[in-house]
Amino acid sequence: MTDPAPSSSPDHAPADGAGFLVAFQPSGRRGRFAADRDLLSIGRELGVEIESTCGGKGVCRKCRVRVEAPAATSGASAASDPAADGAAAGTGGLSAQTAATCVSPPTDVEIKALGDQAIADGMRLACQTRVAGDVQVFVPEESRRTRQVVRKEAGGRTVVLDPAVRSYHVLLKPPTLQDAMADAERLLAALEEQHGLTGLDFDFEILKVFPGIARAARWDLVVIVWRSESAGGTIVEVRPAEDPGRVLGLAVDVGTTTIAAYLTDLTTGKVVATESEMNPQVAFGDDVIARLHHASRSAEGPGELQRSVIGQVNELARKAVERAGGALGDIFDTVMVGNTAMHHLFLGLDSRALGAAPFAPAVQGPVDTRASALGLTFHPGCRLHVLPVEAGFVGADNVAVIIAEAPYDQDEVLLIIDIGTNGELVLGDRTRLLSTSCATGPALEGAHLEYGMRAAPGAIERIRIDPETLDVRFKVIGLEGWHTEHPANEVGARGICGSGIIEAAAEMRKAGLILSGGGFNPDASHERVLFEDGRPRKFVIARAEETAIGRAITVSLKDIRAIQLAKAALRAGAEILLRTYGTPKPDRVILAGAFGTYIDKYHALAIGMLPDCEPEKVMSVGNAAGDGARFALLNMGKRREAAWVAGRVQFIELATDPDFQREYVKAMQFDPIPAILEE
Amino acid sequence: MTDPAPSSSPDHAPADGAGFLVAFQPSGRRGRFAADRDLLSIGRELGVEIESTCGGKGVCRKCRVRVEAPAATSGASAASDPAADGAAAGTGGLSAQTAATCVSPPTDVEIKALGDQAIADGMRLACQTRVAGDVQVFVPEESRRTRQVVRKEAGGRTVVLDPAVRSYHVLLKPPTLQDAMADAERLLAALEEQHGLTGLDFDFEILKVFPGIARAARWDLVVIVWRSESAGGTIVEVRPAEDPGRVLGLAVDVGTTTIAAYLTDLTTGKVVATESEMNPQVAFGDDVIARLHHASRSAEGPGELQRSVIGQVNELARKAVERAGGALGDIFDTVMVGNTAMHHLFLGLDSRALGAAPFAPAVQGPVDTRASALGLTFHPGCRLHVLPVEAGFVGADNVAVIIAEAPYDQDEVLLIIDIGTNGELVLGDRTRLLSTSCATGPALEGAHLEYGMRAAPGAIERIRIDPETLDVRFKVIGLEGWHTEHPANEVGARGICGSGIIEAAAEMRKAGLILSGGGFNPDASHERVLFEDGRPRKFVIARAEETAIGRAITVSLKDIRAIQLAKAALRAGAEILLRTYGTPKPDRVILAGAFGTYIDKYHALAIGMLPDCEPEKVMSVGNAAGDGARFALLNMGKRREAAWVAGRVQFIELATDPDFQREYVKAMQFDPIPAILEE
Repeated sequence: MTDPAPSSSPDHAPADGAGFLVAFQPSGRRGRFAADRDLLSIGRELGVEIESTCGGKGVCRKCRVRVEAPAATSGASAASDPAADGAAAGTGGLSAQTAATCVSPPTDVEIKALGDQAIADGMRLACQTRVAGDVQVFVPEESRRTRQVVRKEAGGRTVVLDPAVRSYHVLLKPPTLQDAMADAERLLAALEEQHGLTGLDFDFEILKVFPGIARAARWDLVVIVWRSESAGGTIVEVRPAEDPGRVLGLAVDVGTTTIAAYLTDLTTGKVVATESEMNPQVAFGDDVIARLHHASRSAEGPGELQRSVIGQVNELARKAVERAGGALGDIFDTVMVGNTAMHHLFLGLDSRALGAAPFAPAVQGPVDTRASALGLTFHPGCRLHVLPVEAGFVGADNVAVIIAEAPYDQDEVLLIIDIGTNGELVLGDRTRLLSTSCATGPALEGAHLEYGMRAAPGAIERIRIDPETLDVRFKVIGLEGWHTEHPANEVGARGICGSGIIEAAAEMRKAGLILSGGGFNPDASHERVLFEDGRPRKFVIARAEETAIGRAITVSLKDIRAIQLAKAALRAGAEILLRTYGTPKPDRVILAGAFGTYIDKYHALAIGMLPDCEPEKVMSVGNAAGDGARFALLNMGKRREAAWVAGRVQFIELATDPDFQREYVKAMQFDPIPAILEE
Repeated sequence: MTDPAPSSSPDHAPADGAGFLVAFQPSGRRGRFAADRDLLSIGRELGVEIESTCGGKGVCRKCRVRVEAPAATSGASAASDPAADGAAAGTGGLSAQTAATCVSPPTDVEIKALGDQAIADGMRLACQTRVAGDVQVFVPEESRRTRQVVRKEAGGRTVVLDPAVRSYHVLLKPPTLQDAMADAERLLAALEEQHGLTGLDFDFEILKVFPGIARAARWDLVVIVWRSESAGGTIVEVRPAEDPGRVLGLAVDVGTTTIAAYLTDLTTGKVVATESEMNPQVAFGDDVIARLHHASRSAEGPGELQRSVIGQVNELARKAVERAGGALGDIFDTVMVGNTAMHHLFLGLDSRALGAAPFAPAVQGPVDTRASALGLTFHPGCRLHVLPVEAGFVGADNVAVIIAEAPYDQDEVLLIIDIGTNGELVLGDRTRLLSTSCATGPALEGAHLEYGMRAAPGAIERIRIDPETLDVRFKVIGLEGWHTEHPANEVGARGICGSGIIEAAAEMRKAGLILSGGGFNPDASHERVLFEDGRPRKFVIARAEETAIGRAITVSLKDIRAIQLAKAALRAGAEILLRTYGTPKPDRVILAGAFGTYIDKYHALAIGMLPDCEPEKVMSVGNAAGDGARFALLNMGKRREAAWVAGRVQFIELATDPDFQREYVKAMQFDPIPAILEE
């Protein structure tokens, strides 16, 4: 944002300290300015971002500020500057009467907009208020152009609202015979004059229809601008100010199994609707390797797989805008994240080289294109930003997790575990970042287990086994409390999800049902222990009458083995990262991904899935990849951070690490259950 | 082009004048460089643009230079620098043997590429040749990256070849497990390393297919880059080096009546095919007003008119590439010019406001978009640049004429007359530029006359009338010599074109057939003079037996009146410009447009169509608008010139000029024919 009037820049202020001192709070920016300059333009000149969508016409009423008599620059007491008007300041708050003499009297517009009481309290519209003496101006939170948007209460992470797409209100003078400037240049001049925007061009499709839109709206317009990193920006839409519509963005996390879409209001930063669905590409294979093979074998290349995922994203967006009360044409910006295979298949990149050594991706850096180039049915001018990938199968989703958690801004050593179909690990702090990818397999998502299922209604997610009686209590998603609080025929269990299977393994180990090697205790004997060929092979979690599937839900030796392999892969990967970094344990462990949300950290620690760490230092943050995508949607700087961090993370290849096999074998063990779980 | 190796910049040259002095001719650039530096990289560092498409690998053989022993910097004699090797230089030319000791011996690559004779003459490949002493390097014309392309022999105007689209040869290392850099970043790194290109991005459609192309071509590639004004540039195509195709551009001049297309090889700057056809929009109206009205009345807006002109341009391009031996997919850049109405209808802009006061265009500045956005069926990454318009009906075609003739670079005051359906006038020099538009009507194009026609076979284009006998001689397009040299039944005249009607008017005036007011001499009496109501009304140019239409071709009082109005409008406009500028007469008159090519300047001066000027100062330059379009295609700087000049030309509105009516009435007169035509 450049000031179009260089003659009023501080360099041109009256010499010898002439003019009045104007100081903004809380930014602390200050300068000397001639009498009669308005506070909005002064704020702009000093780089104080005061909200204003009408360009200083007193129409939008967003530039509310509180005018105060000037405070001394040092010390806590607010003694007024004698130069202002000589009035004493009292002990703290300054009366509006005192402050009012520093500036021009309220205009009719302000009195109507703010009311007498607010004006008595010193509230003013910055665009209407002119300097008449030294003055201090407080810009309240809601009037600041870059507002802090708190992502979530728990994590307390914040992101500054600075999206790529913004809207501006402009009022143009209609052309006359004396002033027959072209329509496009007329708008560009108004955007510069009223909002200080320079270096803009037109999206060609908008240029074509702009003359008609402008005249139908009687030149009172809302202009939606997409700012590029390099050039000034592009006008992607012009709407009548009377009916401006919404400015929405969509953050999409394309997982191998699940697609999540977050519809976000780009003017407030708030998520207005969240939708998720299965990734329909599962029809072409459960895992990424199968899908890459399908894409490379298929005559039409990635086309078929791309269409299926794009179709699903369009459908999620349709549901989201319906829920939020908007239109697909209100979506002006999109950010996508996903692992490298999902990234390639989403973009329709030639992914043949990705499926075989040396696994070279088509592109690593961020990709910017029009959403319509992929078949996304949003606003025709909608852009798509895809976060960079790191290397091989550490993809843009992991980059998103990293920018969400920002370990590079912290002194503590964080271990970030994002568990999906693969486990992605990041270890580091502001000095160094390591990452790796572990083949955990789908067991932790509840897949490929005898009674495994996704974390959906009917899934057993919590399990307790009494070590004495081997009695079982469990919780079912969608059912209040423990199942024992309900009649058996109302329990309706359908399977066990990932968090449930972790608890089953830990509780079975604690109860002595399984041994340290993962095998069933050959001495186990209980009605819940089922035998095959005379050896214990299964343990009944839910009796047939407690299920909705007409038979008992059990955990088998094979299921335990799958968990064992998954947790060993994860643990060994973490240990290799810790060893590479040179620290015995992380300061904090962050569990990301839907699975991390549901997992009970005590049980995860109990089965040795996580490295040694105090339980209170383990926290779940939900879909951090989705959060990272949203952050990149809300803040251009986060995109730069992503590009920077993707090139900075050091990828550790486990397969070639000499210590990996030993760590893996060691991590296969089920250690004795620590005391914490005994309570 | 930035040098990627800052450590070898002149700032880092050995201190105290160490290193060897390398001087380039004819540019005169010089600097000191360490031994063993190659001449290509030194040239780049000094800003000497030496052609090289292989990035210094000795493959392309384009960087041929002649190595000479160093000359003294002043004086004509080429005394060698004693520091070089102490060899005497003789009286002038230096033997290659002397020069050879200044540099490394020829490599096998060079001997194979250049042959023994050339090497004996001092020819070398700059990329293969390393500094071994003080040396002078002559870069021949064909090795200079920015070659002078002479537009035409007559005008002698030149344009430097600096197009928006260029191709580069790169050879990449294939990825390995140790070097699994992504394909896209691999190419970007190679373009920087081998060609010094930075800040590039990929056209998304190329990014998608690049992995397959690179592997099929075994990483030996030709990369086609479009440079934008603001950012670094975009990779729009990648082709196997073995089969690189061509890099073509199309300059299009869309006239109200005729569309001309110039297919140009962007690597040589040469026009490889020219095609022209009627503008099919004539079906919607002969003049721009009728077409704008049609567009504004039509339910689908400008769509129908746009499709018709785009279809014609596609067809012209198809014919041109067929003739030149290329493909539509080889066209990577397009420049379009036309008057403001043609400009709007070609781009599909909302033109409703253009057809009524205050005649505001949709856009004045240059428009850049993808050619495919308009339905042009060229390479999918092909760009379109449309020159800016000035105001109202002074359009991009006039801007093109101005950048072709560049009056702003000259001390002489030029009057440029571009005659199409309207007459566009520009008057000025390096201090000031004025323009105006005169409603000459279609008569000067041979339209709306009783026997008028375009300058096509069968048109009478030259006419002589014997003042004594009133005998007529004429020339017909497609027929050798005067018609009197052929039997009457082989003459086959079909009508009179614009240049013919000018001559008819001048000759009839000279013969006393018409009077100064434009009316027929009532005393005229001859078999060729036809009477209506007892008054002379028509003059027979071609007798019925000399025509292909079965009846005589005549010039009527009405025809003379049309010419009279046209020439008066043109002359009055020119006089107003001269008066506004403050000069009685222009230093030169430039006749542009097809009509300007055929018109006989003596007759045009005779009927007072042109302002007072020596005949030898009047010159025809053909389709200058098309030339301007070609220049903008060949040179990015010409596009900047166009944007600059469009904002600098002062448009003079004739309708509101108080002197215009008087000048117009005065210019209606047919003055006595000056002596020059009597000869």
